[in-house]
Amino acid sequence: MKTNPTTHHARRLVLAAVAAGVACVAATPHAEAQTGRRRRGADQEAKAVELTPEQVAQLTKVANARKLNAEDLVAAAKTYTPSGRHDEYVLFSSGGQSGQVFAIGVPSMRLLRSISVFTPESWQGYGFSGDADPVQESLKIMGRPVLWGDTHHPALSETKGDYDGQFLFIGDKANARLGVIDLRDWETKQIVKNPLTISDHGAAFVTPDTDYVIEGGQYATVLGYGYAPPEEYKKLYRGMVTLWKFDRAKGRIDESQSFALELPPYWQDLADAGKVASDGFFFINSFNSEMATGGVEHGNPPFEAGASKRDMDYLHIIDWRKAEAAFKAGKAEKINGFPVLMLPTLVEGGVLHFAPEPKSPHGVDVTPDGKYMVVAGKLDPHVTVYSIDRIKRAIADKKYSGSDDYGVPVLDFDAVKEAQVELGLGPLHTQFDDKGYAYTSLFLDSAVARWSLGGETGAKAPEGPWKLVHKTPVQYNIGHLCAAEGDTVSPDGNHLISMSKWSVDRFLPTGPLLPQNFQLLDIGESGTTMPVVYDLPIGVGEPHYCQMIKADKLGSWKVYPEIGWNPHHQRLDPSAPKKGDEGVTRNGNKVLVKMTAVRSHFVPEHVELNEGDEVTWRITAMETAQDATHGFCIGAYNINLSLEPGEFTEFRFVADRPGTYPFYCTEFCSALHLEMMGYMHVKPRSGASKPASE
Amino acid sequence: MKTNPTTHHARRLVLAAVAAGVACVAATPHAEAQTGRRRRGADQEAKAVELTPEQVAQLTKVANARKLNAEDLVAAAKTYTPSGRHDEYVLFSSGGQSGQVFAIGVPSMRLLRSISVFTPESWQGYGFSGDADPVQESLKIMGRPVLWGDTHHPALSETKGDYDGQFLFIGDKANARLGVIDLRDWETKQIVKNPLTISDHGAAFVTPDTDYVIEGGQYATVLGYGYAPPEEYKKLYRGMVTLWKFDRAKGRIDESQSFALELPPYWQDLADAGKVASDGFFFINSFNSEMATGGVEHGNPPFEAGASKRDMDYLHIIDWRKAEAAFKAGKAEKINGFPVLMLPTLVEGGVLHFAPEPKSPHGVDVTPDGKYMVVAGKLDPHVTVYSIDRIKRAIADKKYSGSDDYGVPVLDFDAVKEAQVELGLGPLHTQFDDKGYAYTSLFLDSAVARWSLGGETGAKAPEGPWKLVHKTPVQYNIGHLCAAEGDTVSPDGNHLISMSKWSVDRFLPTGPLLPQNFQLLDIGESGTTMPVVYDLPIGVGEPHYCQMIKADKLGSWKVYPEIGWNPHHQRLDPSAPKKGDEGVTRNGNKVLVKMTAVRSHFVPEHVELNEGDEVTWRITAMETAQDATHGFCIGAYNINLSLEPGEFTEFRFVADRPGTYPFYCTEFCSALHLEMMGYMHVKPRSGASKPASE
Repeated sequence: MKTNPTTHHARRLVLAAVAAGVACVAATPHAEAQTGRRRRGADQEAKAVELTPEQVAQLTKVANARKLNAEDLVAAAKTYTPSGRHDEYVLFSSGGQSGQVFAIGVPSMRLLRSISVFTPESWQGYGFSGDADPVQESLKIMGRPVLWGDTHHPALSETKGDYDGQFLFIGDKANARLGVIDLRDWETKQIVKNPLTISDHGAAFVTPDTDYVIEGGQYATVLGYGYAPPEEYKKLYRGMVTLWKFDRAKGRIDESQSFALELPPYWQDLADAGKVASDGFFFINSFNSEMATGGVEHGNPPFEAGASKRDMDYLHIIDWRKAEAAFKAGKAEKINGFPVLMLPTLVEGGVLHFAPEPKSPHGVDVTPDGKYMVVAGKLDPHVTVYSIDRIKRAIADKKYSGSDDYGVPVLDFDAVKEAQVELGLGPLHTQFDDKGYAYTSLFLDSAVARWSLGGETGAKAPEGPWKLVHKTPVQYNIGHLCAAEGDTVSPDGNHLISMSKWSVDRFLPTGPLLPQNFQLLDIGESGTTMPVVYDLPIGVGEPHYCQMIKADKLGSWKVYPEIGWNPHHQRLDPSAPKKGDEGVTRNGNKVLVKMTAVRSHFVPEHVELNEGDEVTWRITAMETAQDATHGFCIGAYNINLSLEPGEFTEFRFVADRPGTYPFYCTEFCSALHLEMMGYMHVKPRSGASKPASE
Repeated sequence: MKTNPTTHHARRLVLAAVAAGVACVAATPHAEAQTGRRRRGADQEAKAVELTPEQVAQLTKVANARKLNAEDLVAAAKTYTPSGRHDEYVLFSSGGQSGQVFAIGVPSMRLLRSISVFTPESWQGYGFSGDADPVQESLKIMGRPVLWGDTHHPALSETKGDYDGQFLFIGDKANARLGVIDLRDWETKQIVKNPLTISDHGAAFVTPDTDYVIEGGQYATVLGYGYAPPEEYKKLYRGMVTLWKFDRAKGRIDESQSFALELPPYWQDLADAGKVASDGFFFINSFNSEMATGGVEHGNPPFEAGASKRDMDYLHIIDWRKAEAAFKAGKAEKINGFPVLMLPTLVEGGVLHFAPEPKSPHGVDVTPDGKYMVVAGKLDPHVTVYSIDRIKRAIADKKYSGSDDYGVPVLDFDAVKEAQVELGLGPLHTQFDDKGYAYTSLFLDSAVARWSLGGETGAKAPEGPWKLVHKTPVQYNIGHLCAAEGDTVSPDGNHLISMSKWSVDRFLPTGPLLPQNFQLLDIGESGTTMPVVYDLPIGVGEPHYCQMIKADKLGSWKVYPEIGWNPHHQRLDPSAPKKGDEGVTRNGNKVLVKMTAVRSHFVPEHVELNEGDEVTWRITAMETAQDATHGFCIGAYNINLSLEPGEFTEFRFVADRPGTYPFYCTEFCSALHLEMMGYMHVKPRSGASKPASE
């Protein structure tokens, strides 16, 4: 295949370096890698393949040996991505109860990277920087560490309803938190805890210009972490939705400009923001409008039955510009110190309307043109489509069928309904393509349904409006699905992911705990052609939702912009040690260590401390080459850092355990990587050396 | 492709269930998946493919659209594994400073599952079960939590030098710990902390029948976590190797039958156990026989230079049966309570010999027949091959070239050396195939070298003994490599993994922190054909070493053997709640919760507590279907469990924060999964309900 570019010159250089015992040994092949080798893709761009009979014979031989048929070979060709060739899309997926986000290349379906959000992760040095670690601090709830999350719905930042590739938001269902990831360095910058509710579900969803990040609720509770027994459910339990104001320039949520809406104690579920025709609105569906309180232990129907009795639940229609105006006009009350627009305010101000929706729905999804809202009732074989024109007209005309127990007006179903399309069993979520189709996951059918939209957008589909076109079986039990940019104003089509929740027999057994199955469907053709072309086991968490962005929209940094960069503040840090600054200074029992790291040594290599010293330790990674990452760990002190090129880190700890502790680089950075180490000597209070045989 | 097996009968059944609002809704498609659908592989076994011109045209069209050439299509065919077809091998890889183990299918190169070992991981419920969590307890060092590890070398258990698929051991370099994984349920069962040293490197390696798990050291220190300043390095710092006795019946290391060997303060590195011809020995290489102590901050050469000055370091040759006899004869002294055979005992008893080895070696690898030890000096372009016959003869004849500073006899280099083979720059590690070849990683060359062995084993290679045959470039900076069963008595050949440490331009940029690159090489043919056929980004850690086992050797459980199984003890637990047992009982402020979990509800659904209650909570997962896993979390209490089919779990906590806390199932288990929840009501000491607007 590729020829080996180790030139005679490089060889002499390396041997000379080895002879001299100097530091640059391993920089050589890397520098060469960057300059001497061309990306493979570039070499081939002009050539068109024509397979010779010999090549066809070779291919057939391999296929027969591996029992592949022609269809398999085509699927392989649609997904296989040779060394050095880059994927076209990046899928950002929640990691479920792993608490993380996963980035996967499409169509190769390779996990490119995990991004730690709610769970400390040592490879990334996330949450392992000693006492008062900023990640660990940001993850505290009511003063206690809560070091995991249940990530459900990632939301890429948008500009005019299209992904802009700048930020990624992710919700933690278990603990009602929101994480903010900066896609320049793929690191979590902020964790926000909802002050009203312990857990949520409907986060994160953004408004079309990312003015707000929407965090919907789920299990009704006493807002503000309150207590009430189940008998007081109707009176004291409530739902909510929070609108977190995003400050794009700072890359942070501005809690001071954020507010919430009190909602009835139905279980609000997923949200989607209106766009284009429906800009200014967002929509949330709900279930358990029965207000069942379970109690199977007392002979009551369990929640699963009690919450599924009624034929209709409530689609929540929220005019967020009106809500924002009410908040700014000071109409919010405070709960647990956080401003909340209470139900009477919402009703009075026309902020909140309901529309009936069949039956325990799970998803509401707005079409690319913003004209239609698609609701999938998981216990109803149809999707129900609402039109924003009808909704606006019904609101204007007060076409109500009544109001709920909390006084919220309920719009007449027939007045707002545009269409219902029968798809099959257990419809959950819907995405869109560029050909006038919608795609809905069918959990119970274990299938993806393709159906045609109506209106102008649907006119591209040859089958006519609101028609089921095709179902492709998936393996098994699909939850969410995701098409390329499939929830934006301009979906790309081409690729669709079935997030199949059960894998059962698809992969080698991995003990009783099995991976999920991300299945790639080729949706590039119209009509009934929509094959599964790849199965990807996900054995690092249980993802719930994902979004797929064109890779060229991402402006990832290859290294930090300057040496001494503080990633938390995204600027050069004046505290970062420079070359020549290194050393250990002491003021009483307070010790400051200034260190630099470069292939392949730390300066200093010995740090002498006394038992009980309070240590502040600063390290600057002096590297500028892409991928020249170092690690830094101190054994038994629970400290591990990832020092990416240019990065500055500070950490603190009390040297409370005497002994001789090696520290070392935890990333294989060079041929002399194992020699990139030093010792921290913590002298015991007694002052004596301890011989080996004691 | 596949047809949808939703029968009319299934549809009626499900609709009836929905109508009744009962629990079994989602069990249906799963049962159907297991019984109604055949594995795809089975359908095709008899058919041989012949590509029609139309199929070739279709393939060519896809290839041209994606700019693939014929070679790419062949590589795709060698690796692509259609839905439902299982991989041939499982690669168990260390996860580096992620602290975990990764299982990857070969040849598809898909990450099947991570296994948590040293770092708590919430998806697996590993380390998130409240107060006194057994994982968190087992990870404490000197009474403090050390919640990450730097996993380096996995070791599959062996019988007669061959993988038996029963257990996997993994070392934590940063904290000198060993993890024991049971491959029936793929869970970590034991963490052992080395009592002599803070950090290590050369773990884990097993003797041919897994009598012992070898944990070699690395950075010399004062044994027993002692303190001494660097000036006392030669006098008080020491290396070590520990032999952990493995009790296969119990599936645990027996610490009471384990012991260590004191070694000079060279940096012992990797180990390999002898086998067949060399059974009873093991070998460790070393570097920094210079005993450099660094100190670049004082103008000394940094460790990387100081530890690389000498032309020769010491291969450690250890007769472990003699060591075991000396330990059993009571010749060990105690350090930090642990028995250690001191250097004079080792020298006197003929347990330890040295052989010179060029220069800062990184790996020592025993050939499948046990006859040869291959040492790769990372700063020497050769591999040096030693013969066990020569070693035994030299020991018998006392062919010494002298002894080191600690009195250890050094065998004459020429007397023990069988061959040296020049391979290229930066040779590190060696593996073997079934065709008489060895494969050595070349870090600085970024290549895998294939070379022929000597002796009977090497006679299969047509090139003659001890010859470099071919080098395949890899991208970039390969560390370890791994061939199928390539470090056992019977390697399989076929597949080889290059664990390339840098990926640079191979994948889409993922911020400044990039994945590693596992490259699959097809080594099925002899001679100079050895192409790279797949690049797998590893963006969840930085793996160091891996082993590849034939999948059919693994006897993984699909579900736990009985309902109420305690995975920690691998037996039915009498405390596991049964159906009908459920409830909450109170004794003063001590509360016992007995719960069952089944699709899709918990029993009970309400748990009423008082602030300050000490809670013991037991859950039995009542499921018996493969993949019917439930989760269980309590928001804000830092609790998340993975309840695999049949599993029993107990956890404890103090209900010290009043409020109303939803608990819910964190695995998407059925269509009514979101309804699988309940409330924990913690009544405040004041006793009052807290209204929403307070």
